[in-house]
Amino acid sequence: MEVLRLGHRPGRDPRLTTHVLLTARAFGVEVVHLEPPDDALARRVVDLARRFGGSFRVLGERSGRKLIQDWPGSTLHLTMYGEDLDELRTRWTLEGPVLVVVGGPKVSREVYERATYNVAVTHQPHSEVAALAILLDRLLGTPQVERRDGARIQVLPARRGKRVRDLTSSSRRLPDPYEEAEAPP
Amino acid sequence: MEVLRLGHRPGRDPRLTTHVLLTARAFGVEVVHLEPPDDALARRVVDLARRFGGSFRVLGERSGRKLIQDWPGSTLHLTMYGEDLDELRTRWTLEGPVLVVVGGPKVSREVYERATYNVAVTHQPHSEVAALAILLDRLLGTPQVERRDGARIQVLPARRGKRVRDLTSSSRRLPDPYEEAEAPP
Repeated sequence: MEVLRLGHRPGRDPRLTTHVLLTARAFGVEVVHLEPPDDALARRVVDLARRFGGSFRVLGERSGRKLIQDWPGSTLHLTMYGEDLDELRTRWTLEGPVLVVVGGPKVSREVYERATYNVAVTHQPHSEVAALAILLDRLLGTPQVERRDGARIQVLPARRGKRVRDLTSSSRRLPDPYEEAEAPP
Repeated sequence: MEVLRLGHRPGRDPRLTTHVLLTARAFGVEVVHLEPPDDALARRVVDLARRFGGSFRVLGERSGRKLIQDWPGSTLHLTMYGEDLDELRTRWTLEGPVLVVVGGPKVSREVYERATYNVAVTHQPHSEVAALAILLDRLLGTPQVERRDGARIQVLPARRGKRVRDLTSSSRRLPDPYEEAEAPP
């Protein structure tokens, strides 16, 4: 499964696209396509991701439309105008690799026409980040505590404070639970 | 159930906090507390929300910490350092009204200490918007097609394009499916 983020705006606040990329990764997606390309942002996110392990790549795309057109499997376009996710998934047929398409406020007509399914997570206006999380939860599940391949640090469940395991040294020191530089959020 | 958004940054790109507010609303929350207050942002979001109906308020807060301290029910603080949501909810005890606390990158120690539960949606870095959506999905469910009280427009499920019902006129005209000004996302 891969994700395509359409309508990124380089030069504007990068947080929203950063959240899309990290959400895709957290729920188990290993490849995100970013249209238009934004190498600086991609590098920052991949560097952060690497500390937590697993495989993760961000590929810049000039034309998301072409990626959708040439995609060899099913494409799921997230939009509040689509069909209800929880109803749709009782009857959809997904074939080959799945591409989840995450738009911004302006998505062209072709995306609606070419998507295998247009998928709504509620029909209320909210957030592509939220919609992506719910869709990935349904498709892949929400991961619990896990150690990803090559991780340098691992966060462990804690009732209070922070438990972070340093995997780079044999000592596995625990940093001060509150002074550790914190990754978002 | 209410939501507290901590660490909003007025003057920066408002999209992330807007997404937190709209996600809370889409999943059925009627009151969001915003620290620090941001009247202009709150008004824009409430105006957008009003078109889609239902009750929704944004309350500015000087001290989120005090709100948590004085809260008469259970408080759930979303953090990647907490306990696994899907494990925790098999055994938690929620009492009275629930307050969901959504932090930003910097959350003070007191929030961890005072929360009834610290709740992790994965232990990977991703997005407070995604984490909020998953938590609300578990607590309230993800709404499907619905008409909220007082809505002026209603989005209907569609395989392709956009079906928007105008509830302000008896004619219920359908706008051109692609030219309609689009609400996020």
